[in-house]
Amino acid sequence: MSPDRPQFISSAANPLLKDLRRLAQDSTAYRKQGRIWLEGDHLCGAALARGIQPAIAVFSESAWHAQPARWSGLQARIVLLADALFASLSALDSPGHMGFVIELPAAPAVAPHAASVILDRVQDAGNVGSVLRSAAAFGFTQVLALKGTAALWSPKVLRAGMGAHFALSLVEGVELPDLERLAVPLVATSSHHGDFLHEARLPRPCAWMLGHEGQGVSPELAARAALSVRIMQPGGEESLNVAAAAAICLHASACASVG
Amino acid sequence: MSPDRPQFISSAANPLLKDLRRLAQDSTAYRKQGRIWLEGDHLCGAALARGIQPAIAVFSESAWHAQPARWSGLQARIVLLADALFASLSALDSPGHMGFVIELPAAPAVAPHAASVILDRVQDAGNVGSVLRSAAAFGFTQVLALKGTAALWSPKVLRAGMGAHFALSLVEGVELPDLERLAVPLVATSSHHGDFLHEARLPRPCAWMLGHEGQGVSPELAARAALSVRIMQPGGEESLNVAAAAAICLHASACASVG
Repeated sequence: MSPDRPQFISSAANPLLKDLRRLAQDSTAYRKQGRIWLEGDHLCGAALARGIQPAIAVFSESAWHAQPARWSGLQARIVLLADALFASLSALDSPGHMGFVIELPAAPAVAPHAASVILDRVQDAGNVGSVLRSAAAFGFTQVLALKGTAALWSPKVLRAGMGAHFALSLVEGVELPDLERLAVPLVATSSHHGDFLHEARLPRPCAWMLGHEGQGVSPELAARAALSVRIMQPGGEESLNVAAAAAICLHASACASVG
Repeated sequence: MSPDRPQFISSAANPLLKDLRRLAQDSTAYRKQGRIWLEGDHLCGAALARGIQPAIAVFSESAWHAQPARWSGLQARIVLLADALFASLSALDSPGHMGFVIELPAAPAVAPHAASVILDRVQDAGNVGSVLRSAAAFGFTQVLALKGTAALWSPKVLRAGMGAHFALSLVEGVELPDLERLAVPLVATSSHHGDFLHEARLPRPCAWMLGHEGQGVSPELAARAALSVRIMQPGGEESLNVAAAAAICLHASACASVG
């Protein structure tokens, strides 16, 4: 079952190109189109490694001609774009030269008893992607995004996640009552009370709450915490980036689970 | 000694505005101009809290009229920009409405025996800023940037650093032989050898090496490591974002120093 001949698009007015541009540039377009834009070799390779086949594989003309062997096994519709046209697609700081369109995975339900991360209006795509990457690395299996969190399948979050999306169950648009189904203790970080993280007995599994970059976790969510811990900061009043704090907490959780 | 009346700039061709635009948009313009652009309330407030007075304080017209009391103590030259002109200055994702121009601090020498972080061609401004923030929070006092690292005093690194710059001694353009002066053990992280971080005996003080997002630390730098540790990642092959890995390592160092 070999793919059809590649389709070449040279017109900026092509309807498929317009759809691709929306997927690549509008962080929530995937929700309307029901499909996702994966940009760049690394991310597309990570999807393939997880057995995910693209619906459409898109290449700049020169990328396609430079590496035809690497992509010869694709079962997808192949679309080639004039280089300048491909360059006009990307919203990333360092654009890729190829990309996949894949189906948006069916939205999973909140899974009970899973080691989880709860994102409460975390805004920055780079932070969200970094948290997903840490979650996957430290053996967490589920990420729950409350309303107001950056769109998880947006191109910028995907880029920062470096493939972690494919190792996790991702639930978007979660509301507070949905968290009842988690049935694991919720753990909060605080700057001024609770045990120090490195001395705390962490429940396992548990769900870590991570909040908005400026405002932190909402009071309504914080009230559901079974435990608050704090990260020792001998440097004084400086605060931590939310993805940095997440990495420290998720690592500590992983160490507690084997310790 | 009250400041002069604010100077109002409404022309895009104004020479000062052109200098400001370079500082705000060109990540290395501070090296040529010998001064730094701090954008936004938070960063400017952090500088003032450390006793740093601006040479010039720049406000959008509406920001100035909204909060005159907050800035009444400034000894600086005050410049007001028409709102649209101020908006055209910024290169940040969420632009501020005011900013300071401060003198670039004199380049410090490499300080011996200091708890340090070494940045080896770390590219992403958000990552570099997050590392500085973690370094300050965990009581590190010095950051050494090897050539090829993102410009430390660029607006994007400053934004991500959230004021950490003012708590650290920052040395740019460091070359490998300069590291001899450090006189503390250099510690590397590895994905596949060395003791696990959470079980390792960490030297104190020490200097943590952090490398390029794709390539890691250069072989020449890695060869200088006194110790390699690895971060346990039960999730499998996933890798960590460099700022996330840094947060975990610097936190562990801080815990070892008090433990």
